[in-house]
Formats: sequence, structure tokens, C-alpha cells
Amino acid sequence: MAPLADLYHLTMAYALWRTGRHRDPAAAELFFRREPFGAAFAVGAGLGQALRSLGALRFSAADIAYLRSVLPSTTEDAFFDYLSTVDASEVTVTSVPEGSVVFSRVPLLQVKGPLLVVQLLETTLLCLVSYASLVATNAARFRLLAGPEMKLMELGLRRAQGPDGGLSASKYSYIGGFDYTSNVLAGKLYGIPVRGTVAHSFIMSFRSMEEVQPRVLSPLAGGEPMDLPSLAESWLQRVCELLGIPSDKPNRGELAAFVSYAIAFPQDFQGLLDTYCVMRSGLPNFCAVALALHQLGYRAIGVRLDSGDLSQQSKETRRVLRACSAHFQVPWFGSIPIAVSNDISERSLEDFIREESEIDMVGVGTNLVTCPLQPSLGCVYKLVEVNGSPCLKFTEEEEKMTIPGTKAIYRLYDDSGHPFMDLMALENEPSPSVGQEFVVHILGRRGEATKVRPSAVEPLHRMYLRDGQACEELPSLQEVRSHAQASLNLLSPVHRQLHDPEPYLVAVTEKLHLLLAELQHASQ
Amino acid sequence: MAPLADLYHLTMAYALWRTGRHRDPAAAELFFRREPFGAAFAVGAGLGQALRSLGALRFSAADIAYLRSVLPSTTEDAFFDYLSTVDASEVTVTSVPEGSVVFSRVPLLQVKGPLLVVQLLETTLLCLVSYASLVATNAARFRLLAGPEMKLMELGLRRAQGPDGGLSASKYSYIGGFDYTSNVLAGKLYGIPVRGTVAHSFIMSFRSMEEVQPRVLSPLAGGEPMDLPSLAESWLQRVCELLGIPSDKPNRGELAAFVSYAIAFPQDFQGLLDTYCVMRSGLPNFCAVALALHQLGYRAIGVRLDSGDLSQQSKETRRVLRACSAHFQVPWFGSIPIAVSNDISERSLEDFIREESEIDMVGVGTNLVTCPLQPSLGCVYKLVEVNGSPCLKFTEEEEKMTIPGTKAIYRLYDDSGHPFMDLMALENEPSPSVGQEFVVHILGRRGEATKVRPSAVEPLHRMYLRDGQACEELPSLQEVRSHAQASLNLLSPVHRQLHDPEPYLVAVTEKLHLLLAELQHASQ
Repeated sequence: MAPLADLYHLTMAYALWRTGRHRDPAAAELFFRREPFGAAFAVGAGLGQALRSLGALRFSAADIAYLRSVLPSTTEDAFFDYLSTVDASEVTVTSVPEGSVVFSRVPLLQVKGPLLVVQLLETTLLCLVSYASLVATNAARFRLLAGPEMKLMELGLRRAQGPDGGLSASKYSYIGGFDYTSNVLAGKLYGIPVRGTVAHSFIMSFRSMEEVQPRVLSPLAGGEPMDLPSLAESWLQRVCELLGIPSDKPNRGELAAFVSYAIAFPQDFQGLLDTYCVMRSGLPNFCAVALALHQLGYRAIGVRLDSGDLSQQSKETRRVLRACSAHFQVPWFGSIPIAVSNDISERSLEDFIREESEIDMVGVGTNLVTCPLQPSLGCVYKLVEVNGSPCLKFTEEEEKMTIPGTKAIYRLYDDSGHPFMDLMALENEPSPSVGQEFVVHILGRRGEATKVRPSAVEPLHRMYLRDGQACEELPSLQEVRSHAQASLNLLSPVHRQLHDPEPYLVAVTEKLHLLLAELQHASQ
Repeated sequence: MAPLADLYHLTMAYALWRTGRHRDPAAAELFFRREPFGAAFAVGAGLGQALRSLGALRFSAADIAYLRSVLPSTTEDAFFDYLSTVDASEVTVTSVPEGSVVFSRVPLLQVKGPLLVVQLLETTLLCLVSYASLVATNAARFRLLAGPEMKLMELGLRRAQGPDGGLSASKYSYIGGFDYTSNVLAGKLYGIPVRGTVAHSFIMSFRSMEEVQPRVLSPLAGGEPMDLPSLAESWLQRVCELLGIPSDKPNRGELAAFVSYAIAFPQDFQGLLDTYCVMRSGLPNFCAVALALHQLGYRAIGVRLDSGDLSQQSKETRRVLRACSAHFQVPWFGSIPIAVSNDISERSLEDFIREESEIDMVGVGTNLVTCPLQPSLGCVYKLVEVNGSPCLKFTEEEEKMTIPGTKAIYRLYDDSGHPFMDLMALENEPSPSVGQEFVVHILGRRGEATKVRPSAVEPLHRMYLRDGQACEELPSLQEVRSHAQASLNLLSPVHRQLHDPEPYLVAVTEKLHLLLAELQHASQ
């Protein structure tokens, strides 16, 4: 793969090469400046894909031919020869494990290597980590709102930035806590469980019961095939009577679609209820077909509502399913899962909970994959050291100041086992000791000093790549997903809450604080 | 390529096949329900890519093996055999030409073919058209605000939904009216002009003038190489004197970086001015190096500002460039292009214009590619006809009602040459005649009837694919970009304005109106 780069990385690469600085040892960090969506946390993701992309870093002959055509004509030939030898074989990467809860200004990734390569990786790493972390965080928020029981399904392919945007959305939503995707390719490539249901267009393509073909279905236990349309019609009479609906009211095209679907998928029958009227057509038709199937030994697996007041309809639907359950003495009928979709947002989930809806599964598309509350995480990638000297980009805005130098990063835990602070130290400082008090300086508070005494100390980064060699096997998608949930569960409720959370503290050691002050002074 | 599909398209495909309806002739339309960003128009894009994807529609053996593993175990083997024969060889597509100005509820694409295939294409087409049209529209808005002269550069790769999201953003921003991209891969793949500049990290990697290596540069016209660091230092004295700045104030690491960059790119020297202080470091350092280059016969090509009050700084920068121009008698110096970046939005562009900034080029990233004002266009794809019968999805919301049946679509023009209405007619109706008055019913106004007399009538759709065969060569990216600008230019100013525009009228013919009323009545 050609590097994902902005042109200036190539012009800079040439300038570095031309001035003989291209092999200077350098270090850079990738981080974000503010937690997204007004929360106190984010979920770090995309790290596995970023690491894999490093292994593929190489300029092909075609890449180089193209670069020759766009770099200034004064660019020397020998540079292109050099470029054809560039790869990640001298790159060392440490990172938080993918799926970890992460905080602003704390590096997700640290990259060391020759200056030319380190700066060349900027866009690749930002492109692969930034959206991945944003959508994983967004998915985690939906999961936190939904609670552990409600099933969450990602439906965003059609709203993503093209096919691969859709794949990223499926993958990182799953990491953030979704259960399923509708995206077949994501299922095939990543093994994410896929789910699907019936669509309005299928239902609309039927007009009458005459169109049902084939018409017969054998009972599950074997035996004489039955005419399912007739059976469904007769159940529809009984259902309509129970519900007090004129039996000519339910749309017969819809009934024909349900019956046809049931014949195709007798063990997986589900109904989409709102093509016409839910209460006077979709629901009675569904009940009729599901009861006919029941008579043959099959169980329907669910219904879906896709418009209108979903909470309210879920309650009405549950009431009808329970009424059928009681009246026709079909015990499982009352607990048929109810799924909903249609522009579901965090607000919708909050409403569902507050209104005590009967919803068991939620499909989320647009508001998951496009992250409309904040469509970019705004990760940055900053050089922190060159030739052993720490770098600082001076700025008036404290928030935008980089923390210079290569670092060790620790997560400090309190007595209850919750993390309460991420601490950046100089790489050569001794690790903070458990149970010992020491001074730190909190970021974002003009360097305010405070004392901490952690009950546990966790080195946050692991070494994944040392001089281009993989040091640790990358976890599976399923493992990353579990790690994300575990990491979220460790968070204190005051940091985990989605609205007005208590900010999580990020601090630097006394020594790093002094270095920062010194460099700030020097650059003013 | 395996089809980009949601699982329900495959379950439906099976249900259709099982009921013998999979080859029923069907038609579907792709449209959006409301113009994005509060405007009265959108730019239709992604159509070329969508058409190309149809040519590649095929299920590989691996796709089929995967589908077997996820479809219910009752799915018959013969279905998978059938699926392996499915392609777009019986599909017919008409579409607006890519880059056209388009309006809500008017189909961008119409697809005809066997029902199974037509419904299978839903997600592929939505995925390829929806974001493409959204970002092209967003880019067109930036272009309208910037006016024809200002250069616009897309910088969004790091903020996109992964690598291909970034490529889509580059491509469709270019169609919408951007001039350049920073994305090297987009340049290589699509031939979009790429531009780059120097970065903060390059500047920060220098500490002192001793680090400049090599130090000499030959004059453009040939002759004795000169020591550029010394030359720049001596120009810096003169510039500081002119500007009244102590000559030890400008950062020497920054100066070293500029000199190094100038030696690498003597004919393409540009300065990024805000790594330290623009007025007391970046700008004097830039002027010094640019004047030193000028002495050797080279012209600097630009400066960039990336933080702070960009309008204000552009004016101060222009004043200094002009002062140097006058004082050192270098005529071209006063008009060195000034580029800006840093979270540029529509609002920023409006401010630049209002404040009469001196900005010549704008780089836009996040606010272009993520479309934060509305991150999804919300395109839909609806079945409009099956077996020759028009379909209607009934709904209480008039806006969500589909317009049934296969249609011809016309754009009607007024005396001034502006389009004033898009008109949908039944496919077999005669085309509206120029200069003749006839009755139409306006959508969104409860079918209000009105009379129109167009001065010109344009059939809006072209046939691109007939029974799987390409009918028309797809235009180049450059041609699509030109068509988009031409299409935008034709719009009346009242529809083109970005805030509070007059809504553009979309109407149906008398006959289509009657059909709609009839189907509505029947489904109630």
C-alpha cells in the first residue's frame, strides 16, 4: 500500500533528505485534545489497523513515478531512489491496547524512528485512528444508555462515506459494544454477527393472497403439508375478532408478503409492521401468520417497527402479543422480541428507557456512523523529540500546547479500583509506587500541583512494534470488544456518565512539568 | 466485487426466489427527501461510481460460502446456485448527469430490472451516491461563498472515515468546485491537482542556523553558489530594521527550517508563519529568506497562516509584504499568495469576505469532509413499480410519500434561462411543449394545482445502462466538475443563495397526480 499521505509530507521528506536530517532519530505522539460528545472519556480504536498498515509501508514504482510528476522538477533523482527503500523496519510503536478507555492529551500511540518516516506516518495514523475511535466511542455511548440487555444493531452502511467508511463503521461500532451489523461484507470480512429482517419493498411488492407461491408448508415435526395462506386467513379472522378489528381491514398484500416470507423462512419468521397501519394491519397480519406457523410447530422470531412513536407502539404491540398469548394459549407469544429502527439517536434511547418501552432491540444507522453530535475527533500527531531533544510547539492556548519529550504513561487507580488519573512521566523516571504519595501537576489547570497516592499503577502503553518487528500478537476483534467493555466498566460512574461528567484528571510528573516550563520559557 | 448489501436484501432475495417472484420486472428510484444544509439545491454525485459498481455485480464462491453460513439452514441449495448467476446484465439505469444540480424528491437514478436484482442494489447505490452528493454539495457551497477567484484546497484525509472515505471526499469535493487536494493518493488515482506546504513539525525539528546543511544555492541563472544562511541572516537584519523588530527576536530554528526548505525547493519556497509568533518571527523570517532567494533570481510562491485571527493576520501580512516590496524594490513581493487553514467553515469564509481579508487560498478539512452541518443526505431507494403496477408506500407524512410508477422527468426553464421547476410525468405521457401552458401539481403543497408555460424543457435523465450494456460514455472527473459549475451557474440567484433561499418547485403532471390520488385512496 502506498502511504496515505498529504503532499506536504513528501515535500518535507525531500527537504529532510536534502538537508541530511532524514535519519535523525525522532518521536511523535498521537492524541486528541478534548473528549468527544461532551463526555469525560473516549474509546481508543483503529490501533490494530494502524499497526498493520505500518507493515505495508512501501512506495511502489508507480507511486514513485506519480510523485516525480507532482514534486518540483528541481527534486533530485537520488531522493526517489531513497524513497523506494523506505519502510517501517526502523519504527518502534507503543500504544494503549485497542479498546481502552482513553483521555484527552494522553498519547494513544507513540512512534519512534527516523525523522523522515516518523513524519510520513502522520496522515496514515490519523486517518486510521481518528474515525475508528470516534465511532467506537459513539457506539459505547449507545451501549451505556441501552444497558447490557438491549440488543444493538448497526445499520449505517448506506449513510457512511462510501463502502470502506461503512466497513469501518461496522467494525468499530462492534468494538464499542454493538451486537450485530446489517452489513454483509463486514460479517464476511470481520466475523461480526449479521442480522437482517424483511423490508418495506418486499411487502409492497405483493398485492393479494393470490400471489403467494408456493402455498404449502410441512409441519416442523413432519407430516402432511398445509396450505399456509388459508391457515393464515383463518387465524386472521380469530385475531381480528379478539382485537375488535373488522377482518377486511388488514392489508392482504401485506398478509401475502408475510405468508410468503414465512414459507421461505419458517424457523426465522419476522414481521415488519408499519408498511401500512401497525395496529389495524401489520400487527394482526403478523399475529395471524405467527399463529399459523405455531400450529405447524414453528416459532416467529421477532417484529420490527420503523416509523411513528416507537415507544408507544412497542407497548401496544406487546399488549396485543400478550393478549394473543393468553387467548390462544401460546405462552412464548407474549415475549416475541420487538425491534425498532428509524433515525434512532441517544435521545431516542433515553426516551425509550424513560417511557418504559417494550423494545428489545434497536437498529442505529445515521446517528451512529456519522456521529452528528461531533463528526470528528480531531486527533493530532505531534513531534515530541528529535535527536534526543524534546520539541515544543509554542502556543498561547494552553490546551493546544504539546507535552514535550518521549514519555512513560501510567494509569493510577483509587481504593475502589477505579482509574482516577492518567500520568505522563519522562521515559527515564522511575515508575510511581503504589501507596506512596507524590506531587503531580494537573493539565488544564495552569499546572496546579497536587499530591496523589495511587492504590494501583498500570503502565498504559504496550510495545507493539520494535524496530519494525511485531512484539505482541494483536488481539482478535472479539477480544478488543471485550476489553472495551471491561475498560468502560472500570470507570467510575462520575466519569462514565454521558452528561455533565466529572472531568478525568490528566497530569504530568514534577520533572516533566519542569521540562515543559523550561521549554516554554525558552521559546518565548 | 461482492454486492454491498445489508443482510435483509439477501433474505428478501431468497424469499423472492422461493416464491418465484425474483424475475418479476421491477423499477426503483433513488432520491432524497429534503435539500441538505437548509439550501434549495444539492449537487448529484457518485453516479459514475454507482454505474461502474453495477458492472462488477457478482457473487463469488467465497461470497456464497459466507452467505450459506449466515442465512437460515432451511435455505435451499438451489438458491445459492441461482445467486451465483446473478449480475446486472438485465438492469437498465437512467440518471441525471453526474454533477447536475438536483432537488428533493426528484429521482437522481431510476433502476429497472428483475425484482431480485433491483432490490439487491439498494445499499450499493445509496452508499455510493449519498455521501458523494452530500460532500459535492458541501464543496459547492464553499465555492459559492469563496467566489470564482479564491483557490480552495481539500485537506480532509485525516478526518474522513478511513482511507477510502478520504478518497471519496477528495474526489467529490473536486467535483463540487475545489481546486486542489492534499491527498497524494487521490492525486495519483484521479488526477486531481495536489498541493502541499511545509508543516509545523518540519520547522520544529530545527533549533539553530548551524543545523542547515547543505548551505549553498546557485543563482537561477547560474553562477557562483552562495551561502544561503548568511544571505538570509543579512536580509533578516534589513527586514527587522524596516519593521522595527529587534533582530534577535525571530526564532533561528524557524529561520533555519525556512532556509533548508528554500535550498531544497528554491523555485517553490513557501513559508508556514505561525509556528512561533507570526509578526515577530514567522513573517520576518519568511521575508528574509524570500528576499535572499530573490537575490539569486527565485520567487517565493506563498505563505500560510494556520492559527489565530486569520483575516486580521492576512491583512497585516499583506501590509508587511507590500512594505518589503516597496522598500526593497521587489514588485512581485506585495502579491505573494496568502493561504490559510485551521478549522475553516462556511462562517469563516463569510467572515473573510466581510472583513475584506487578503486571503488568496483556503484549505478546508473537517468542515468539508464530515459535513458537520448535516452529516447525512438521507437518500432513499424506493420500489415504484412491480409487474407493471405502480407501488405506493402509504404514510401519513406527505413528505415521506413516494411518487408511484416509472416516470419521465423534465426540467422547465423560464425566459431568463433559469430552471424554475422539475416535473415528473408518467413515462408514456407526451413531453411538455415549450411555450404551451399546462396544469401541474406542486409537491409539498397538498397537490396545489398551478399553470406553467416553460420557455425551455430539458429531459433530465439520460440512459446510461440498457439491459446491462453501457449506452453512454461516462464523463471524466474534469468534465463532471465543469458540468457542476455550469449547472450551478444556471440556477436563479433566489435558489442558489445559501441562506433562506426560495424553495425550488417540484411538481407532477395532472395524470401522475391522479394516479397518486387513486393509489392513496386504495391503500387507506
